[in-house]
Amino acid sequence: MSKKIFLDEKEMPTHWYNVVADMPNKPLPPLHPGTKQPVGPEDLAPLFPMELIMQEVSADRYIEIPQEVQDIYKIWRPTPLVRATGLEKVLGTNSKIYYKYEGGSPSGSHKPNTAVPQAYYNKKEGVKKITTETGAGQWGTALSFACAQFGIECDVYMVKVSYDQKPYRKVLMNTFGANVFASPSNRTNAGRNILANDPDSTGSLGIAISEAVEMAASDSETKYALGSVLNHVLLHQTIIGQEAEKQMEYAGDFPDIVIAPLGGGSNFAGISFPFLKHKITGGKSVRCIAVEPASCPKLTKGKFMYDFGDTAGYTPLLPMYTLGHNFKPAAIHAGGLRYHGASVLCSQLLKDGLIEAVALQQLECFEAGVVFAKAEGIVAAPEATHGIAQVIREAKKADEEGVSKTILFNLCGHGFVDMQAYADYFAGSLQNHEFEGNELTSSLEEIGALQPQ
Amino acid sequence: MSKKIFLDEKEMPTHWYNVVADMPNKPLPPLHPGTKQPVGPEDLAPLFPMELIMQEVSADRYIEIPQEVQDIYKIWRPTPLVRATGLEKVLGTNSKIYYKYEGGSPSGSHKPNTAVPQAYYNKKEGVKKITTETGAGQWGTALSFACAQFGIECDVYMVKVSYDQKPYRKVLMNTFGANVFASPSNRTNAGRNILANDPDSTGSLGIAISEAVEMAASDSETKYALGSVLNHVLLHQTIIGQEAEKQMEYAGDFPDIVIAPLGGGSNFAGISFPFLKHKITGGKSVRCIAVEPASCPKLTKGKFMYDFGDTAGYTPLLPMYTLGHNFKPAAIHAGGLRYHGASVLCSQLLKDGLIEAVALQQLECFEAGVVFAKAEGIVAAPEATHGIAQVIREAKKADEEGVSKTILFNLCGHGFVDMQAYADYFAGSLQNHEFEGNELTSSLEEIGALQPQ
Repeated sequence: MSKKIFLDEKEMPTHWYNVVADMPNKPLPPLHPGTKQPVGPEDLAPLFPMELIMQEVSADRYIEIPQEVQDIYKIWRPTPLVRATGLEKVLGTNSKIYYKYEGGSPSGSHKPNTAVPQAYYNKKEGVKKITTETGAGQWGTALSFACAQFGIECDVYMVKVSYDQKPYRKVLMNTFGANVFASPSNRTNAGRNILANDPDSTGSLGIAISEAVEMAASDSETKYALGSVLNHVLLHQTIIGQEAEKQMEYAGDFPDIVIAPLGGGSNFAGISFPFLKHKITGGKSVRCIAVEPASCPKLTKGKFMYDFGDTAGYTPLLPMYTLGHNFKPAAIHAGGLRYHGASVLCSQLLKDGLIEAVALQQLECFEAGVVFAKAEGIVAAPEATHGIAQVIREAKKADEEGVSKTILFNLCGHGFVDMQAYADYFAGSLQNHEFEGNELTSSLEEIGALQPQ
Repeated sequence: MSKKIFLDEKEMPTHWYNVVADMPNKPLPPLHPGTKQPVGPEDLAPLFPMELIMQEVSADRYIEIPQEVQDIYKIWRPTPLVRATGLEKVLGTNSKIYYKYEGGSPSGSHKPNTAVPQAYYNKKEGVKKITTETGAGQWGTALSFACAQFGIECDVYMVKVSYDQKPYRKVLMNTFGANVFASPSNRTNAGRNILANDPDSTGSLGIAISEAVEMAASDSETKYALGSVLNHVLLHQTIIGQEAEKQMEYAGDFPDIVIAPLGGGSNFAGISFPFLKHKITGGKSVRCIAVEPASCPKLTKGKFMYDFGDTAGYTPLLPMYTLGHNFKPAAIHAGGLRYHGASVLCSQLLKDGLIEAVALQQLECFEAGVVFAKAEGIVAAPEATHGIAQVIREAKKADEEGVSKTILFNLCGHGFVDMQAYADYFAGSLQNHEFEGNELTSSLEEIGALQPQ
């Protein structure tokens, strides 16, 4: 039996899969917060190139991956599908565990899968500079790499607390040629206003988004890029699941369960949507499970309603499971999972009972990460350990029930740049965080009246 | 054209290649420092399991890789051979550049290729614990992972200055289950003696070796492992070059030039020896170039003589190119290249004119590393940038001469855990270091009388 299943470059998918085509209930449109009317392509044009906007609203089942993007994907794609024989042995399970490994990419995670096409479409439209925000730094690194491929300037607004705590992430972005600014910065009105009120502000993702958006909106040759949540971002990630589909076929297998962590939704969508297609259109009984942190449980304890995508309330209103855009999650190390809402597509699919969700505490996740590292030789990123922990739960459950399941999960990234998290775990300074609810703001309750039926 | 050439697991080499079988002049034996007589297997038995000692002195051309080792190799092997199309484009060269990428391993470098068989043979002999030293941390991480595979305890003595400066390397080793001690420690006589004289000692590789060796020698169930220099270590790394040989064949190519950095010699040996075989036995005109740092130029400015392998003078005397075991190299970031001598096999091959050597300054290397990261999407470890810089030199030289060369190099590891080096480079705080000679100690000159003819 092979430990790893590789695809030849010639077998790499040539199209992204758009789950919208197969959704029984189509996603509701984003609304303009002032008019409460659906947002049109022209409303988004100052921020995104038109081809990405068209992908955002497309209902086509397959969208072709441009040859230039395919060529750059080949730096690290197709990625391996690995049989987790070491983990199976440690667990003594009768189930079969597979993982798709996305950590071999330039930034060490799945993020370049969307960063590259986003940079490509911007380049095609003559954009000279792309701005973005980054928290822990994975997305900023991916976009920095992608912009370097097309000779586009890249300005990253990095949440100040991360900028100070994770200097190596900043250096990685610099190495790929990006400019990195601690946010709040003095470069934007949004940043200057914050600093005037609170000179010691350590920033937030919401503030960083505001700064990046402001810079993009105020310059016709500059646009903005987002690393998750939006439909086109999830679309680009489906190359993961499509590859895994072929690789599982070569292994002579099909997953009973597909698992991935969910922050905004792009990692989960990437691995699960191509398998979900078989459930929706072919009646296969695959369970797709999104794993969120117990400290930020929008899927399991949030409300399905229209809410802002950012903290400051500058974006269109999105129909999604949310804890409220004013929710401040605990400072867990899985920074990529600390987002108040879930993407529109994942939210609608959960509402329709087509996917499942579970919330896990971080100590269980790190414990799973250490077991996995010893068994499989890969130190997973803190976000990725959430998927591993759920895999272990499902394998144990199957053994208790006396059945054997085929479990597939997406190992979305390695933890080489996140070792402080493991250091804190070993030092015993990490703790679990219970979700204690969040008071929805009055303006949000008003928006709640728009809750889709 | 394919960007990457993968081998199927079934095509992974089943034997290591032992260059000794094909060397026109066989390596001279190590000598006992007291008797000046060749060291026998029994002298080494307290430190190493007998199967490794037999490999150390073997002249067999091929040595079988045990099935258990092959199974663990498959976690990350076969590794990809990549056509550096991005780098070729940036350089505008007419030469073809390929690299073998070893950064996808559990520790992020080529080191597990020998750590796994070393742990295996120790396990087979009933060893309960392995001790070792580590400087920058790559070797310690690899051995930690390997020991976890076989349930062997692993004690790593980490040079104190690195222990304090690189806490994440320590956490990586802890994650794989190893115990990591700052050296000098209070656990050994060697460490206690140093601390008694200098309580603030920041340690050295020499001291750490002494501590690890002392612990192994004083306990019959504990042995010691080394990550480079010795014949059996170089042997294990030849799986790299043998894979590359097949992959180049699939690409329809054969290298004119093979390049790798040289610290002790295991990385260079790993990629080059299987190609050197064609030069020695088949008359092929491949040039194998070892790249060392200008600050530690044993191959280009050292003396071929008998010298100790460690600073303290506890090891057998080895016939090698050396700067003197009392040489203190400048504190460059490529920690893996800061060793005073070159392995016996590489030294003999250089003396016989079968390989070449070149010394490069670190600023040129980091510049090459940044070019490579943008072009190929991989941030190379500081050691690995030495190879890249020489590749760029050779490509430019070929273009100036109006010829096209096929250049292969070993990208031995990624730099995700070494970003401080890039930070210092960008901050302008790195400088080049000229070698200013080293005064050989009088005892060393006496040993020099044993210089082989």
